[in-house]
Amino acid sequence: MPASLGRVLLAYSGGLDTSCILAWLIEQGYEVYAFMADVGQEEDFVAAEKKALKVGAKKFFLEDLKREFVTELIYPAVQANCIYENVYLLGTSLARPVIARGMIAVADREGCNYVSHGCTGKGNDQVRFELAFYGLKPDIKVIAPWRLPEFYNRFPGRQALLEYAAKSQIPVVQTASKPWSTDENLFHISYEAGILEDPNVTPPTDMWKLTTAPEEAPETPERITIEFTAGLPTKVTVPATGKTYTDAVDIFLALNALGRTHGIGRIDIVENRFIGVKSRGCYESPGASILRAAHVDLEGLTLDRNVRALRDQFVTIELSRMLYNGHFFTPEREFIVSAIPASQRTVNGLVRLKLYKGNVVVEGRESSEGLYDERQSSMDEMGGFEPTDTSGFIQIESIRIKKWAQANIRRGQSGVTPKDVYGTRV
Amino acid sequence: MPASLGRVLLAYSGGLDTSCILAWLIEQGYEVYAFMADVGQEEDFVAAEKKALKVGAKKFFLEDLKREFVTELIYPAVQANCIYENVYLLGTSLARPVIARGMIAVADREGCNYVSHGCTGKGNDQVRFELAFYGLKPDIKVIAPWRLPEFYNRFPGRQALLEYAAKSQIPVVQTASKPWSTDENLFHISYEAGILEDPNVTPPTDMWKLTTAPEEAPETPERITIEFTAGLPTKVTVPATGKTYTDAVDIFLALNALGRTHGIGRIDIVENRFIGVKSRGCYESPGASILRAAHVDLEGLTLDRNVRALRDQFVTIELSRMLYNGHFFTPEREFIVSAIPASQRTVNGLVRLKLYKGNVVVEGRESSEGLYDERQSSMDEMGGFEPTDTSGFIQIESIRIKKWAQANIRRGQSGVTPKDVYGTRV
Amino acid sequence: MPASLGRVLLAYSGGLDTSCILAWLIEQGYEVYAFMADVGQEEDFVAAEKKALKVGAKKFFLEDLKREFVTELIYPAVQANCIYENVYLLGTSLARPVIARGMIAVADREGCNYVSHGCTGKGNDQVRFELAFYGLKPDIKVIAPWRLPEFYNRFPGRQALLEYAAKSQIPVVQTASKPWSTDENLFHISYEAGILEDPNVTPPTDMWKLTTAPEEAPETPERITIEFTAGLPTKVTVPATGKTYTDAVDIFLALNALGRTHGIGRIDIVENRFIGVKSRGCYESPGASILRAAHVDLEGLTLDRNVRALRDQFVTIELSRMLYNGHFFTPEREFIVSAIPASQRTVNGLVRLKLYKGNVVVEGRESSEGLYDERQSSMDEMGGFEPTDTSGFIQIESIRIKKWAQANIRRGQSGVTPKDVYGTRV
Amino acid sequence: MPASLGRVLLAYSGGLDTSCILAWLIEQGYEVYAFMADVGQEEDFVAAEKKALKVGAKKFFLEDLKREFVTELIYPAVQANCIYENVYLLGTSLARPVIARGMIAVADREGCNYVSHGCTGKGNDQVRFELAFYGLKPDIKVIAPWRLPEFYNRFPGRQALLEYAAKSQIPVVQTASKPWSTDENLFHISYEAGILEDPNVTPPTDMWKLTTAPEEAPETPERITIEFTAGLPTKVTVPATGKTYTDAVDIFLALNALGRTHGIGRIDIVENRFIGVKSRGCYESPGASILRAAHVDLEGLTLDRNVRALRDQFVTIELSRMLYNGHFFTPEREFIVSAIPASQRTVNGLVRLKLYKGNVVVEGRESSEGLYDERQSSMDEMGGFEPTDTSGFIQIESIRIKKWAQANIRRGQSGVTPKDVYGTRV
Repeated sequence: MPASLGRVLLAYSGGLDTSCILAWLIEQGYEVYAFMADVGQEEDFVAAEKKALKVGAKKFFLEDLKREFVTELIYPAVQANCIYENVYLLGTSLARPVIARGMIAVADREGCNYVSHGCTGKGNDQVRFELAFYGLKPDIKVIAPWRLPEFYNRFPGRQALLEYAAKSQIPVVQTASKPWSTDENLFHISYEAGILEDPNVTPPTDMWKLTTAPEEAPETPERITIEFTAGLPTKVTVPATGKTYTDAVDIFLALNALGRTHGIGRIDIVENRFIGVKSRGCYESPGASILRAAHVDLEGLTLDRNVRALRDQFVTIELSRMLYNGHFFTPEREFIVSAIPASQRTVNGLVRLKLYKGNVVVEGRESSEGLYDERQSSMDEMGGFEPTDTSGFIQIESIRIKKWAQANIRRGQSGVTPKDVYGTRV
Repeated sequence: MPASLGRVLLAYSGGLDTSCILAWLIEQGYEVYAFMADVGQEEDFVAAEKKALKVGAKKFFLEDLKREFVTELIYPAVQANCIYENVYLLGTSLARPVIARGMIAVADREGCNYVSHGCTGKGNDQVRFELAFYGLKPDIKVIAPWRLPEFYNRFPGRQALLEYAAKSQIPVVQTASKPWSTDENLFHISYEAGILEDPNVTPPTDMWKLTTAPEEAPETPERITIEFTAGLPTKVTVPATGKTYTDAVDIFLALNALGRTHGIGRIDIVENRFIGVKSRGCYESPGASILRAAHVDLEGLTLDRNVRALRDQFVTIELSRMLYNGHFFTPEREFIVSAIPASQRTVNGLVRLKLYKGNVVVEGRESSEGLYDERQSSMDEMGGFEPTDTSGFIQIESIRIKKWAQANIRRGQSGVTPKDVYGTRV
Repeated sequence: MPASLGRVLLAYSGGLDTSCILAWLIEQGYEVYAFMADVGQEEDFVAAEKKALKVGAKKFFLEDLKREFVTELIYPAVQANCIYENVYLLGTSLARPVIARGMIAVADREGCNYVSHGCTGKGNDQVRFELAFYGLKPDIKVIAPWRLPEFYNRFPGRQALLEYAAKSQIPVVQTASKPWSTDENLFHISYEAGILEDPNVTPPTDMWKLTTAPEEAPETPERITIEFTAGLPTKVTVPATGKTYTDAVDIFLALNALGRTHGIGRIDIVENRFIGVKSRGCYESPGASILRAAHVDLEGLTLDRNVRALRDQFVTIELSRMLYNGHFFTPEREFIVSAIPASQRTVNGLVRLKLYKGNVVVEGRESSEGLYDERQSSMDEMGGFEPTDTSGFIQIESIRIKKWAQANIRRGQSGVTPKDVYGTRV
Repeated sequence: MPASLGRVLLAYSGGLDTSCILAWLIEQGYEVYAFMADVGQEEDFVAAEKKALKVGAKKFFLEDLKREFVTELIYPAVQANCIYENVYLLGTSLARPVIARGMIAVADREGCNYVSHGCTGKGNDQVRFELAFYGLKPDIKVIAPWRLPEFYNRFPGRQALLEYAAKSQIPVVQTASKPWSTDENLFHISYEAGILEDPNVTPPTDMWKLTTAPEEAPETPERITIEFTAGLPTKVTVPATGKTYTDAVDIFLALNALGRTHGIGRIDIVENRFIGVKSRGCYESPGASILRAAHVDLEGLTLDRNVRALRDQFVTIELSRMLYNGHFFTPEREFIVSAIPASQRTVNGLVRLKLYKGNVVVEGRESSEGLYDERQSSMDEMGGFEPTDTSGFIQIESIRIKKWAQANIRRGQSGVTPKDVYGTRV
């Protein structure tokens, strides 16, 4: 083989696609290093390493990114109640930046001029990976074979890949292929493509992997308590087992196990990809769903109304969109995230939850922050409150509304009626 | 009695408070007409009328506002996915404008100079009622006894009201008083005050009135289908009974019955009242919860991404706040609502749901709008898509990100590192 | 020549670039029709037609789009106070949709399979044109020669174009080329590129074409009056000449003439193009600058505070961005624009202005809408206002602020001080 | 006199109103300390002290707050481009928090149980002062005489105050009273009330105090340069005098002097007060107007597009509203302000300005941040840019737009035409 075209760090999964890409890159004249990130997915990393080296990778790197995934990506998203299009908790989106950062760190250290991945040309992940690469190392060169005509025209379908694998002595595991694709990490698993592309097909019950079906979940509810400090979960107590969890990763894994048992966190949606294509996806996010419910609830008790409203409108929505679209290593993400700490300073306290057959039920919450004042809130006592103040408040609040109403009435006298504005009765 | 101070239309509930207010207003020298709105609450209107007239009301008006409540208030809120502080579906807020409008219509027709209500001085409803009154009839005069020192000092607690009732020959039903207050209409029921004022007290199981507990709900899931036209539910099909519903009110009532059976729509939150006091409330909104899940889902299939994003950030959040704060008959509500139709033009299709023990599970959806394109979305075929286009897209999207990254790197060379911006690995 | 590859409608300017493109398209085997839009630019349309036909266009179409440019594009932008990045009034952005719509109408009528334009590959206009084409006729095919390697590699600079023109018998006017590019229409003229690419170069005084320099403008101020109906200018009165203008286009042209005389509407900025590149542009928008100042002022007198605030944050900013990025024929533009009428219903009245050496000075305004109430506003009389109401208002407004302050004070006692939050003095 | 009702710290101005309030508070039985803040207004502080003590104040405190006004209030507002309702630069709003903080610091130190001020019951300043007091010291008691019936009924007009002054031996300066009120500090002066209450009255030329009329300003333009570091002005160079300014306060004062000379920063508006009343105000902000123009311009060169867009929509608008409404010492202000530094990290560079008869003209700007790239921006060279990338970008951007257009066309075939959506031509 002639002199190498350069060294490529390939995001390797151990599957058919990236194994063929590995062989193909070598065939093109690149030297290839394989990279795997452990972000909590169920995977035989030893077998994957063996396979990568067998196919021809010069080196293999496995990076354990679970802790930074939880603490640097997941927890800020919990603090900001991130959610995309009202439903999706962003499990795949959150993993991409740590994986990309892990790759760039290895590429830098190992002198790789290129990075490569096996993402398709229609999805979000290609964008998330590549914008992250460029945001960290703007001069990195990216090889995305599924967008290169010389690759995708040569491998128009699975059969062509299998033939290439056979020819290239790539071992292919003879498992029955699932009629959908998945992406898994410790936050969630996603399902898309295949039979799911018809948005009216109900996912088969055996598709769901991370959670028990609500119908199969225990008949007996389970109670747990989650404590938060500055909006972050710092202690989970599970009375049934007598266990408590305080380490950031342990907390997340414990909540995952609880959610899995009780059938919590399944969703099925049609979402809008960054490239503008609508796409159907199913997701399981057991622990994250519990955590979100608890955090949102505690904010009711501990977060100022106006801060919450501004945060919901600007940080939650904008940050969720940035995460979904792969705009993590960007100035706008840095900007928006810089406002989170001031919004979470008072989010301290605990939430008591009941988990039961898909439901996360808040049963109570407490905090010593003092923004909730039982006496002031009470309908049974004055609590230092002067009811006459509210009269003044309402009068002042009504000033501009009265002016508007008067203008409507005047206008009504000349043809346009308030009914046009306000409906049937007026 | 001397010449009347004027005629008052009193929002009458039939309960102890408004009966005492009725008697007290007469005692002050007003002529009082009693007003009740039927917004779907469980109520003995005949008994209430009898009681009002017995206490001294000169006239009694019962207005059936259920249809306008559903069509003019609830359905626009469904179209806009309204929700307050991520959780509350605004059941009480939505009823207030139709009740206030009904009262103003009667007050106008019957020559009442005053309107009066029995809302407390700490709550939201006083504001919602009065701003609505002023927004419709800016010169109306409002008597809010619970904010008048001569009233609230005279009646510092329930015992004083009972004594006044006895003295004024107001019949008092000797039911055991519940340790909380409720507000009910066909959208929901709310519970607050009393034992609920401790936010860490779990509501007793016998408090919940409109829904079966998930634990007690049927073991067998039920499937239904909801069809939408321009974002409004136009047909509900319930295979188990073979029934379909197409009338706006019937649809809502049918969904309520389904939600009730399957334990859907309970929430328990600490919310922020308009006056700035935090307050704990529990709510049951069975039908509305089903409807919201279905509408949000169908928008995934049928609504353009950018319209949805703008609508979520501006219409949903702003309109929800306006409704909560009683800003219905205002120019800003008129303004925001005027954008809803353009957002719902394509929201046509149906959603298939599974109802099971508190869960509303979307099992599929379809539409002929064509914004979802199975071939284009597919990972298995090109579908008219050129993967190379995405390369150009990513290159263009990365232009400004690369500039920023280069600036970070230059800055890193002079002291501040990208790590300060981007975390552990860089 | 073999059978035609198809019929192309080319956006023709009469200049060197589009003349060469015309010849090149014919050379490739297309049949070419030339299209010009009259959007108010200074242009010899007769000469351009003659030239197009001489170069080989089979037909030539000149469409007068001035009125629809003013009424359908400019005036809604005036109603919404559109402005991009605080400074730019969007003159070029506003013209593109009407031109694109005019082209698609001709292409449809004349059976053109293709449209083509001479925009460069780095600018905004290519995007604005093409997204408009696709939003109106999604199956139209676009030929953008400056993005085709076979074109841009063949014509790497002006010299290559001149040589091709000579060879193709394209007449070239021997005017000294200006060291910048311009785009002109009746709203504005833009200057960019060439010597302006250094953002620290002051534009030469002889660059500015549409306005007198403030230094050269009359020493005597001029007064005018603009009347608005529903936010649209409906009458302009110019006392100095005794003239009034009421036709939509006449009004705009009259304000242009006034602005030109008095040196109004020059700007010089670095802006962010849609593709993410920063770019320096200079603009003159004389009439639009006057109109914007007047409209913003009248809204102070006639528009409800909350409507204005929501409109500023959502409609003004979002619509301006959509216009700039060429998202005119899109669902999100339709959505946002649908809210404008409800925001302008009360914007009726007149504004008196003084024009003087670059300044637009508001000297007074009046309206019969009645939202401004001199007695209520007055500091000299009560005007139906109860000062004690404000006490109640302030008490209620301070409830949550006091809770926060108490939490800060408690926190201060345990280490973190209010000073960390509130600065030096506390 | 009986035992004191307590000690009051009165915000004293030296004028008739607060002198009468001082005397009246003593008459009611309070011990009164007088407080004056030097925020740069033109004032005879020595005479004021003498007068306060003569009227009966037990102590007099003069606090020089100019530096903290500039550095803690004005400069963050410059960084965020704060502006209220498109026009007002918030000069009075910005001064209130430092004054209130100064008062609370003195009240704390001197053991005052009460604070008092002479603001009217209809304005913004009462709210700004009192919310600031409560945000710093939630248990402070406030005496606002102009909202107390026993005060305002006793002093229904200026004549009553003059009589009381005479009786109380309060010296009254016999200057002709101006037919408007003013509030002055080093940022600006405001004019309101009196003859200005008719919004159609042009302010008399002799009203304006801080600036030369543009008509009277020098015929010769003046050039200056402003340098910014992290969005803050750090150096002003004035070639005409050869002077440079680098101290924060000096910079502001120098710009004020320049603006004054060249007639810069006059505005005349109708604005919406926090209490919902519309009000006419005139303002002069010479230095602030120059600074804002320069800062906005430099952001064009140095701030990422997406950060700028988010900052404009959220921080600029929300912070401006908070400042106007007196929500400075609040959690939401803390929240929003916490995002400013991340938005200004790259705003480094200089702006060259021409000042001429009311105009602030940007003549050039430079920065070494590198976000502007002359080669990349250039229309004359590729600069590393691949025009074909833009083709991909446009294709991807058009995906959802084409889907929408197709839906419109289908709909058009069944009755609703694209013309309903897109106007005349389609």
